[in-house]
Amino acid sequence: MPEIKLAIDAMGGDNGPSIVIDALCQLINEGTPHHFLVVGQHDSVTPLLSQYNLDEHPQVTFVHAEQVVEMDEKPGQALRAKPHSSMSIALELLAKGEADGVVSGGNTGALMAKAYFQLKTLPGVLRPALMAALPNQLGGRSYLLDLGANASCDSETLFQFGVMGSVAAQILEDISSPNVSLLNMGEEEIKGNDVVKNAALRLASSEHVNYTGFVEGNHLFSGKADVIVCDGFVGNIALKSCEGLATLIVDQLKSALMSHWMYRLFFRFLQKRTQKSWDRLKPDHYNGASLIGLRGVVIKSHGSANAKAFGSAIRQAITEAQAQLPERIKDRVESVLLEQH
Amino acid sequence: MPEIKLAIDAMGGDNGPSIVIDALCQLINEGTPHHFLVVGQHDSVTPLLSQYNLDEHPQVTFVHAEQVVEMDEKPGQALRAKPHSSMSIALELLAKGEADGVVSGGNTGALMAKAYFQLKTLPGVLRPALMAALPNQLGGRSYLLDLGANASCDSETLFQFGVMGSVAAQILEDISSPNVSLLNMGEEEIKGNDVVKNAALRLASSEHVNYTGFVEGNHLFSGKADVIVCDGFVGNIALKSCEGLATLIVDQLKSALMSHWMYRLFFRFLQKRTQKSWDRLKPDHYNGASLIGLRGVVIKSHGSANAKAFGSAIRQAITEAQAQLPERIKDRVESVLLEQH
Repeated sequence: MPEIKLAIDAMGGDNGPSIVIDALCQLINEGTPHHFLVVGQHDSVTPLLSQYNLDEHPQVTFVHAEQVVEMDEKPGQALRAKPHSSMSIALELLAKGEADGVVSGGNTGALMAKAYFQLKTLPGVLRPALMAALPNQLGGRSYLLDLGANASCDSETLFQFGVMGSVAAQILEDISSPNVSLLNMGEEEIKGNDVVKNAALRLASSEHVNYTGFVEGNHLFSGKADVIVCDGFVGNIALKSCEGLATLIVDQLKSALMSHWMYRLFFRFLQKRTQKSWDRLKPDHYNGASLIGLRGVVIKSHGSANAKAFGSAIRQAITEAQAQLPERIKDRVESVLLEQH
Repeated sequence: MPEIKLAIDAMGGDNGPSIVIDALCQLINEGTPHHFLVVGQHDSVTPLLSQYNLDEHPQVTFVHAEQVVEMDEKPGQALRAKPHSSMSIALELLAKGEADGVVSGGNTGALMAKAYFQLKTLPGVLRPALMAALPNQLGGRSYLLDLGANASCDSETLFQFGVMGSVAAQILEDISSPNVSLLNMGEEEIKGNDVVKNAALRLASSEHVNYTGFVEGNHLFSGKADVIVCDGFVGNIALKSCEGLATLIVDQLKSALMSHWMYRLFFRFLQKRTQKSWDRLKPDHYNGASLIGLRGVVIKSHGSANAKAFGSAIRQAITEAQAQLPERIKDRVESVLLEQH
């Protein structure tokens, strides 16, 4: 596998640059052969690089950025007023070919807007999409897209998301012909709105996608589909609703388990013995949403990620860059466009 | 409180009439003063009524129905071909004023279509909506609508859902001025599609709703809003996604807990001691989605409900019928229509 050079936006995320540098340090200590361009404000980042003994490390290069996109800044404003932000400079390194991918834990809206503006979509691709991996009951992962890059989509855009998601699942999960489904309010053909019905016809008619019909929300985690397609409005709400429920369940479980010393003791014991099966569900392992359809690898880390989770996002970027996911998507979209003529 | 007469569709649900009759028997044994018109096929239902000693009970009247709507039948077909189904006859009893409400665990699409056709919407109401209560982190309930009665909605329809949900939360939760929110992919005003943006303006301009802005999916269970409004496509997917995640978590928890005799023992002990806090989250307690906006109380019980859960759905119907929820919604919608002129 080729060595990769990643541009890392060190200023993004709720927890500041320390978790980013910590994540890099862990990866380097584990023996990663890749190179990292750490983009951020000199005064915030260089002391941390010294602290972690990365200031003169051959795999780490610091790149200064004057500006920072705030987490609550409006994307349009960030796009216009922050051309020298760490996010913009990281994307610029990718656009100029000086990096093979970008990882940022910053403002999602700003990252999507800047990435779209600075990198552009691949030839023939209508819109980029935000895609994430979800754990499923079969022990594997299913990919859900779009998670919020597009508030509404026409059926051709949803069709393309199916094509792009299929290429991604092939590469990332090593599945030869991933099952691609559309998220709908029922499984019967007559269910849903016109956009999903037309997208279904379009997906069923293509030889380049293994379309397996509609799935309902309860199948996000069942493993019935390897790729699940919806517009960004629906995907964002579905995923965040699940986050909300998980928080509620964990809160109830914790308060029940912490109410007595014996439960606490047992909980620790149980935790150790069942670590593996729980680890599969932990958000840390699923951190790193891919912004696909662009001319370059861009990974969005969750704003509240810790160092371990940020490390997962970096690994995701390495995998996609090594597999040349954008080029593979470009090839597939070209074949699909040829099929139509 | 007045005594209520409910028409119960005994043939709906995956588990057949036995759980329905079992639920009725439990309610009557608990001393409910209400009357039940049990609608179903003679040969399936009367033996069960005898078995539970309800065949000559003064609070129970059997009503024969020749046909049954199957759980997987297409709603349009059920509407045309099954005018003598238990579902239709139960709704007919309500339409004729012989019952104060209907409870059915049958085919959701068919129930929505038949109820809309047989009862009609209240004056001024554009569309009925399916509404359910969700447990929240504050220990209360939030109401989510629409859950699938309408695949797409215009902004005026979403506005009306806010009005109707507000009346329902006032009555069912005894909140004087419920917080009403729109479900969106972000909380800022610029987020989302045109339909939710226009619905937000409409809700903010009315004196008859306490509109508190957009909420994201993670607030479905936070208690931030008492009423959360979305179209049926989004609501259905959000709720079913949560069902899917809950199944995944419970599966993992069970397999972890059942892997050793000591865990199993502890689990039983823990279960007993923490029953109360878990009971709050159990679907049994939240069974009973209300089809609101119609000229009558119609409650949809989950297809897979057990007797206890079906009992919750019956209680929901009794509460709504006693509070005359349809009349209260009619009054509020009238006030809103007057406000516009």
